[in-house]
Amino acid sequence: MTLSPTLITQFASIVGDKYALTDPAAMASHLHEPRDLYHGRSPLVLKPGSTAEVAAILKLANETRTVIVPQGGNTGLVGGQTADQFGEEVILSLSRLNRIREFDLDGNCVVVEAGVVLETLARAAAEHDRLFPLWLASAGSCQIGGNLASNAGGTQVLAYGNMRELCLGLEVALPDGQVLNGLSRLKKDNTGYDLRDLFIGSEGTLGIITAAVLKLFPQPKGRAVAWAAVESAQQALALLGQARAGGNLTGFELVAHIGMAFTVEYMPGSRMPLETIAPWYVLAEFSSSRSQEDASGTMTSVLEAAFKAGTILDAAIASNKAQEDAFWALRENMSDAQKHAGGSIKHDISLPVASIPAFIGKAAAAVNAMIPGVRLVTFGHLGDGNLHYNVTQPVGMDKAAFLARWGEMNHLVHGIVHEFNGSISAEHGIGRLKRAELTHYKQPLALDLMRRIKAVFDPNGIMNPGKLI
Amino acid sequence: MTLSPTLITQFASIVGDKYALTDPAAMASHLHEPRDLYHGRSPLVLKPGSTAEVAAILKLANETRTVIVPQGGNTGLVGGQTADQFGEEVILSLSRLNRIREFDLDGNCVVVEAGVVLETLARAAAEHDRLFPLWLASAGSCQIGGNLASNAGGTQVLAYGNMRELCLGLEVALPDGQVLNGLSRLKKDNTGYDLRDLFIGSEGTLGIITAAVLKLFPQPKGRAVAWAAVESAQQALALLGQARAGGNLTGFELVAHIGMAFTVEYMPGSRMPLETIAPWYVLAEFSSSRSQEDASGTMTSVLEAAFKAGTILDAAIASNKAQEDAFWALRENMSDAQKHAGGSIKHDISLPVASIPAFIGKAAAAVNAMIPGVRLVTFGHLGDGNLHYNVTQPVGMDKAAFLARWGEMNHLVHGIVHEFNGSISAEHGIGRLKRAELTHYKQPLALDLMRRIKAVFDPNGIMNPGKLI
Repeated sequence: MTLSPTLITQFASIVGDKYALTDPAAMASHLHEPRDLYHGRSPLVLKPGSTAEVAAILKLANETRTVIVPQGGNTGLVGGQTADQFGEEVILSLSRLNRIREFDLDGNCVVVEAGVVLETLARAAAEHDRLFPLWLASAGSCQIGGNLASNAGGTQVLAYGNMRELCLGLEVALPDGQVLNGLSRLKKDNTGYDLRDLFIGSEGTLGIITAAVLKLFPQPKGRAVAWAAVESAQQALALLGQARAGGNLTGFELVAHIGMAFTVEYMPGSRMPLETIAPWYVLAEFSSSRSQEDASGTMTSVLEAAFKAGTILDAAIASNKAQEDAFWALRENMSDAQKHAGGSIKHDISLPVASIPAFIGKAAAAVNAMIPGVRLVTFGHLGDGNLHYNVTQPVGMDKAAFLARWGEMNHLVHGIVHEFNGSISAEHGIGRLKRAELTHYKQPLALDLMRRIKAVFDPNGIMNPGKLI
Repeated sequence: MTLSPTLITQFASIVGDKYALTDPAAMASHLHEPRDLYHGRSPLVLKPGSTAEVAAILKLANETRTVIVPQGGNTGLVGGQTADQFGEEVILSLSRLNRIREFDLDGNCVVVEAGVVLETLARAAAEHDRLFPLWLASAGSCQIGGNLASNAGGTQVLAYGNMRELCLGLEVALPDGQVLNGLSRLKKDNTGYDLRDLFIGSEGTLGIITAAVLKLFPQPKGRAVAWAAVESAQQALALLGQARAGGNLTGFELVAHIGMAFTVEYMPGSRMPLETIAPWYVLAEFSSSRSQEDASGTMTSVLEAAFKAGTILDAAIASNKAQEDAFWALRENMSDAQKHAGGSIKHDISLPVASIPAFIGKAAAAVNAMIPGVRLVTFGHLGDGNLHYNVTQPVGMDKAAFLARWGEMNHLVHGIVHEFNGSISAEHGIGRLKRAELTHYKQPLALDLMRRIKAVFDPNGIMNPGKLI
């Protein structure tokens, strides 16, 4: 079935012609995704301006069995926001639902629409002397709706939790055009099944999140950031334990040396914070609700004790905000830097924290046995057991030949993750990229329950088919 | 349909005759619940000793359309764990699934079976120098499975979250006898719909939780507890804001004077911590990950500032562990004390925190207009917006005549809660008690989705019918 001109006109009449794109050039930015793995085609990109318009689109789509692909900032890394290649899927962009509806400062929460850009929300919260803690490298363009649909994580999960833990309530348009009004500001509400957490992380396959109530936190009164060199992942884990015991820890990122080497080589203005070269580095952030002195004091005593105990080889302390940002930029630019070093096969995995050193050892051996000379750009949120285990091609290997082994490499790495009772998607979701792979590792009973839940919400299968489930 | 002797024998053969109770005296403790609102009848109480036995019972029940009522410590306050009056529902007690399977100290989690008593787990965690923070007045008899099925809250939610936030993974026996193996120890796992949070809070209507992985926390190095007198709920809220800003706040309970008066009058050994008589009191607890001095110091400076600012009238600081426990006992004995003052109609409600003073004012007027002279024993977890709004009968009124107005009173109070966008069940759940009431306040669409989800898991309706949905 192709989308008829009549139907295109009907859809367009809901949002107005201006917001119904059919011109290939206008649609282009909605059809490419950041990793360039998927190139979709679509007859129509709709940009509704209200929840009612989203609901009306879904109702018409449901009645006409038209597939809808919800799209936020189009920053997702597993193809969950992409149309397929057959050119019949309508993209529904939430970007015009970009109002912050209300700051509730007494209630420490904010009501936002799905299309609000994460960084915009974070800045607005700061202007109200509050913290909205979710933070990702794509904060400047990812949107709250996508963050919710993918249960986004990022660098502050250690202290504040992922998107599921940051959300109090949701407004959701369902495939049949009804709207679930769940914009609750309550901290406790035991009145039935947890529909909210079902939508969070469902990757647009059950309905479209149009607005949310999100938690706000006090702005920390002090922040301190350090860059430490460690000999092994095991030592990084030991430092994590020591840093946690000290209190105030809000970020703990592990970075392999090769990733830093790429960053310094390819990202203009980047430089190593330390002269000490080590196999691994840790970026640690401490925040205090009391004072700058408290944050700095906690960090200094943790680092001093760690140095004395031999846990760390060396450490640099950021002496001002610019240096703190520079340390964080080193971590956040890691993916971009890697692009300059050739093809890279990605994994977003999580493991029981204590198993990480053993996993790293076993996986390195297996991956090198499969393709000798690969460069392992391992980094991630060690405090959450979440690694971005990215495998860069050997020097001189043909990029296409390397990338052709993406699936095989994934399967090898995920098999080892599974042995350690880990997850093949820690924070990016399943999307198109890992949908087939998931069937190997998820209990068939769980997949069956998921499929039957999907049928409850979307019996006609119009919501983002081919993704997740 | 009554349960045939043949079927009783079949069920009994799964668990062994010793653990299949049919004798009324032996079953008695399973048929009464703490508030004495429901008196159930049952032909059979089964006490399986393993997950496999639970699954086998469900499979047989499903095939024979036998209703199963899961029961933990039988401490629930909404009748969710009770059999109905027709004598055909089989009670499945989880009490023999009482092993702590494993403490994972590196991973800061513990694998426990559903029948482990909460206090037993808390003590075992303390022996491993860890904190399992969930705490309720019924901790000595409630069980982890029931805590999960009802998404229990309690006194430490402010700092650590409710049961949903304390759980990493679940093992669940489904009505068809299959077992969902979700005992994950991962902090991050975005591989599909959130089945875990669907079971948590589902009150035994979707399946039976047989085991769980729960989070552990460091034991605080210091704790400080104070009892403060305040003039109004508004002042209590102001104190909450000041205490939060000081950091380290782990408990914040509001208590109406009348509740304290009952406690002192009826609970032997109870005494008021302060000579100052005030309309309201606050129990505040501060914990520090650093030291006793830090906890005490934070608390003292909060209280001094609050006294200077006129937020509090007076305060008593517990000077040792025994006094801290005595302060907490005053709060925890409030429900028991109330029983001695006559009939009491209960409400477990939550509100947007900032609305609580306005709610208290409006509800008091309405409730007194309905039954003049009622005594309002309002107490609860103010930091979470959760009040136990308990209405004690007027002095001299006939108890039965007062209790006969339970439904009418509930409806009045819940109506006001609804006006303030609150919840009619903050932490106790819906059970039998609020099932009909829920239909007035929950969006019909949400109820419809819940019913359809129920049908996915339990198409034959054998799991705890007449509860929740």
